[in-house]
Amino acid sequence: MANEIFPVLFLLLASSLLPLAAPADFCVADLNGPTSPAGFSCKKESAVSSRDFVFSGLANAGSTANLIKAGVTPAFVAQFQALNGLGISAARVDLAPGGVVPLHTHPAASELLIVIEGTVLAGFISSANKPYTATLKKGDIMVFPQGLLHYQANVGAVTAIGIATFSAPSPGLQITDFALFANNLPTPLIQKVTFLDAPEIQKLKKVLGGSG
Amino acid sequence: MANEIFPVLFLLLASSLLPLAAPADFCVADLNGPTSPAGFSCKKESAVSSRDFVFSGLANAGSTANLIKAGVTPAFVAQFQALNGLGISAARVDLAPGGVVPLHTHPAASELLIVIEGTVLAGFISSANKPYTATLKKGDIMVFPQGLLHYQANVGAVTAIGIATFSAPSPGLQITDFALFANNLPTPLIQKVTFLDAPEIQKLKKVLGGSG
Amino acid sequence: MANEIFPVLFLLLASSLLPLAAPADFCVADLNGPTSPAGFSCKKESAVSSRDFVFSGLANAGSTANLIKAGVTPAFVAQFQALNGLGISAARVDLAPGGVVPLHTHPAASELLIVIEGTVLAGFISSANKPYTATLKKGDIMVFPQGLLHYQANVGAVTAIGIATFSAPSPGLQITDFALFANNLPTPLIQKVTFLDAPEIQKLKKVLGGSG
Amino acid sequence: MANEIFPVLFLLLASSLLPLAAPADFCVADLNGPTSPAGFSCKKESAVSSRDFVFSGLANAGSTANLIKAGVTPAFVAQFQALNGLGISAARVDLAPGGVVPLHTHPAASELLIVIEGTVLAGFISSANKPYTATLKKGDIMVFPQGLLHYQANVGAVTAIGIATFSAPSPGLQITDFALFANNLPTPLIQKVTFLDAPEIQKLKKVLGGSG
Amino acid sequence: MANEIFPVLFLLLASSLLPLAAPADFCVADLNGPTSPAGFSCKKESAVSSRDFVFSGLANAGSTANLIKAGVTPAFVAQFQALNGLGISAARVDLAPGGVVPLHTHPAASELLIVIEGTVLAGFISSANKPYTATLKKGDIMVFPQGLLHYQANVGAVTAIGIATFSAPSPGLQITDFALFANNLPTPLIQKVTFLDAPEIQKLKKVLGGSG
Amino acid sequence: MANEIFPVLFLLLASSLLPLAAPADFCVADLNGPTSPAGFSCKKESAVSSRDFVFSGLANAGSTANLIKAGVTPAFVAQFQALNGLGISAARVDLAPGGVVPLHTHPAASELLIVIEGTVLAGFISSANKPYTATLKKGDIMVFPQGLLHYQANVGAVTAIGIATFSAPSPGLQITDFALFANNLPTPLIQKVTFLDAPEIQKLKKVLGGSG
Repeated sequence: MANEIFPVLFLLLASSLLPLAAPADFCVADLNGPTSPAGFSCKKESAVSSRDFVFSGLANAGSTANLIKAGVTPAFVAQFQALNGLGISAARVDLAPGGVVPLHTHPAASELLIVIEGTVLAGFISSANKPYTATLKKGDIMVFPQGLLHYQANVGAVTAIGIATFSAPSPGLQITDFALFANNLPTPLIQKVTFLDAPEIQKLKKVLGGSG
Repeated sequence: MANEIFPVLFLLLASSLLPLAAPADFCVADLNGPTSPAGFSCKKESAVSSRDFVFSGLANAGSTANLIKAGVTPAFVAQFQALNGLGISAARVDLAPGGVVPLHTHPAASELLIVIEGTVLAGFISSANKPYTATLKKGDIMVFPQGLLHYQANVGAVTAIGIATFSAPSPGLQITDFALFANNLPTPLIQKVTFLDAPEIQKLKKVLGGSG
Repeated sequence: MANEIFPVLFLLLASSLLPLAAPADFCVADLNGPTSPAGFSCKKESAVSSRDFVFSGLANAGSTANLIKAGVTPAFVAQFQALNGLGISAARVDLAPGGVVPLHTHPAASELLIVIEGTVLAGFISSANKPYTATLKKGDIMVFPQGLLHYQANVGAVTAIGIATFSAPSPGLQITDFALFANNLPTPLIQKVTFLDAPEIQKLKKVLGGSG
Repeated sequence: MANEIFPVLFLLLASSLLPLAAPADFCVADLNGPTSPAGFSCKKESAVSSRDFVFSGLANAGSTANLIKAGVTPAFVAQFQALNGLGISAARVDLAPGGVVPLHTHPAASELLIVIEGTVLAGFISSANKPYTATLKKGDIMVFPQGLLHYQANVGAVTAIGIATFSAPSPGLQITDFALFANNLPTPLIQKVTFLDAPEIQKLKKVLGGSG
Repeated sequence: MANEIFPVLFLLLASSLLPLAAPADFCVADLNGPTSPAGFSCKKESAVSSRDFVFSGLANAGSTANLIKAGVTPAFVAQFQALNGLGISAARVDLAPGGVVPLHTHPAASELLIVIEGTVLAGFISSANKPYTATLKKGDIMVFPQGLLHYQANVGAVTAIGIATFSAPSPGLQITDFALFANNLPTPLIQKVTFLDAPEIQKLKKVLGGSG
Repeated sequence: MANEIFPVLFLLLASSLLPLAAPADFCVADLNGPTSPAGFSCKKESAVSSRDFVFSGLANAGSTANLIKAGVTPAFVAQFQALNGLGISAARVDLAPGGVVPLHTHPAASELLIVIEGTVLAGFISSANKPYTATLKKGDIMVFPQGLLHYQANVGAVTAIGIATFSAPSPGLQITDFALFANNLPTPLIQKVTFLDAPEIQKLKKVLGGSG
């Protein structure tokens, strides 16, 4: 008797609240819809399933067969659409012995790095030009405040693995060397704004695919 | 003379600023447009009139002819589109004698409850598992911090009425019993994550329309 | 046996998480501590009790025995400390027949007005100088977007009561007439920035207690 | 050899991160797309070029051949689309001798005014009705907190120029006189909410193009 | 020569910018200072060193010798002060075979779970009462939107390890069973707001250390 | 008569709202009080006067008698305390012919540059390594999105002056060369994370006052 009445309330509430669910609970990105300063458009809730909330792309090591002996595999909103609007994302970092993630910033997020395997030398530099450096062992975590230059390097004998997590679904990634040398910024301009010598600039442009 | 010149300035200012009005002043929701993590799309300003800013759906009591003797009538952005992006919403709560709003959370907002009629026992439980409870009379207000479990019950002899207001246009509403028992979550899983006994779970699933 | 072990986990979790409770769950204002752009300092959690979350100051009508036949009773964070940091507040508005809340803005919040008794003419003016006006009856709600000029007037035969709620714990309240005429701003300056005539300014300064 | 491998990493990183660039780095407004509470839609990154980030509309003086001897030239997101989502905007203020920017508010932003030429008397009034006033010379800057009434007047013998900058891409602009007198708000209503006399209201309505 | 001049600029800049560093770059929590809605007070920058940015407390497994066969080790701002204000935190979850993190919410953060070892059944329930469930293997990540009920259980034969990361330095943790049964909420009240039978409530109160 | 009553309302309102003024309207920084992630503590409102809202430190040119022929004069919250919590700040940039503001980022703010005198070549580089460059003339403005590498150089024959404004009271300033070469970061580490040659690093360390 009461049982018959109760679901009525449930249905009433559920139907009136259903239109709210997507904006309030989650907003899985539709990469093909319009974007806004707040992120990507939301997929219709009826098209969202459990699979949307899981990402398996970090299960395998990124290739370290490159100059920096490092592989970075992002799980940002572009790869893992459920992160849209949720203020968090991740990336897997694989570092062969001697491998390095070169000096870089994340313009839009702070980073929390968790060392899963190996030994990592990591550091950041503050606005006051003070370096903060640490040697991280398995299980250690280190935080890199938003927008500051930082780096990670494998200083152990075996491959190191880290999971970097970020305080935004699209943290951005600006690798200083790539920003300077992997495009067509004129060498005299780079000289002027970095004080580097022209031959050094030319050398790095060649390595990183830049011109000018 | 001056009078002739002045409107020119006005028109100049007005025309240059018109395109800003919608994003800056308000953004009445177009429920059929794309949504983003910041909410619904904005209706064109030319389609917005005074009526958009008024909602009459809370004027009448919600039905309390149900098991919990309670009626909840939302004025969230899905019902009242002018709230889109404005950081506030409301709901009317009608509680017949003995009526109760069962244990629930609002994942996306704090709640400020205003008792309009009657006597309401209300409480929330903190992350430290400490209950904060009060008996509210007509005119009393109580605040329930964002995301914490809370409840309201009519402990008087007459119908109680409350206006709940929220710090977001889509506060969300997760009623613990509905989340657990009004869907197909398997009974053994519910047992595992709540320590409830299977018969208790089965009984509530039956009441609330769940299965499994 | 298991029962004996379980509380250990509970105590472990509880003790490790207790220091987080105040910043994470709530931050009841200590009006005597330092303030920051985010609000008042938090009272120690051990000094917080259920009573902190309830405010009874809106239960009684504000006096309307004044020129504007209106009484405004705030429940902002200065009066109701539990609102600190929670993004919401309220005020009671009593309007005798003919009473008015003069033209004003809330610099820091949107307002959602709920009419509890009577008939209220209310309106706001957009940045594009367009008025949005409505006659509100008992149970109607109206939203006033942040920072825009608005007003409320009792246009019925009996006292009207409204509950105004706000999207910030300190919405601010700037009554245009008080800002212009209840201080020592020089009359020629007011003339210059409002185009009002000097006698009109002088008259209102006298009414509102201003000088200059 | 290493040189051949390195660009591979670069390309890998660049391709995987490209879809993130627009939401993370910038979101140049597409004024024809849907809008949201967070602002305008983003132009596709492939359609964005250096020119989008530069605005030349403030280079020339606004006309001061009007009643208030003032010209205001906005560089808000409606005029300068690259500001979308970036939390900043600007406007140029030209004031002939005796010119004035009448009493106004920016509902959605704080203002920082930089005096480039001349002498400007500026002030704002707090929620507590206290005026804060200053005479600014070339090079002085003054801040006007969000949503508060303020004004600027040229009190020197030559034209004054200011650059006003704002903490939002769409600060809004509500000039009190225009809000009151440049539309069809009924005179009796204005009397009621401002205490101004009817002849004064009628006079200003005539000047500013209002009716009613 | 130039070399002698250049450091002057550096010193000038460095000295003028030093006072900004703490609020702008980071704000390592001083747990003994006043707190605000934005978090803990900042330690003086001169007292901050590299060690502040590293936390080793997640290196060792939490004890799973308890009823739920689970150990949760937080790295929230209370444990890892450098997270203050940075929008991110973490916790280590150890689950023996059959272990479970019971139904809970984080009132103030979304969670991103990374499975480091083992097989974890995880799920959350939306405001629309729809369960989203997945079986996660080593390397999988899953996101749990802010404030929604969720759980994790080891469904493999060996110990499972997860790193949970959060979009706030103090995510909060409200375990539903603890909120209901580990305090002195009266049994009749719990009955009323959960529909559970009194004997079930009494049993769980006994297990979890509650009374009443 | 009415005149006698009206000020009573005013006094009542004013007194009840006075405690709100500081947190709601403004929060002038007390540099000696505790800081929080939201900024500096607020000065007591009674100690705040008009002078607090004006800053004259940008009126005079910064010295350009240095290696980079540039002077940067900040008006951040550390220099101009009224900006605390208001989301805006500024700096004056003086560039002698040939002068340059070397490659840098603002970790916590977007920048809007206004060219007051002269001709400035300016640019930023996106996360996708794409340069956006422009030659700015007097009156031009350019926006640099938050956290991205950018630079400004005088490419005219006369001194150039710019006013940079920022979307935060403490934008931060990280000059890449100073971060790398003006401290004791070991040369081999810099080599590793930048691919620069040791002699180049040593040379720049010598110029900028670094060691190691």
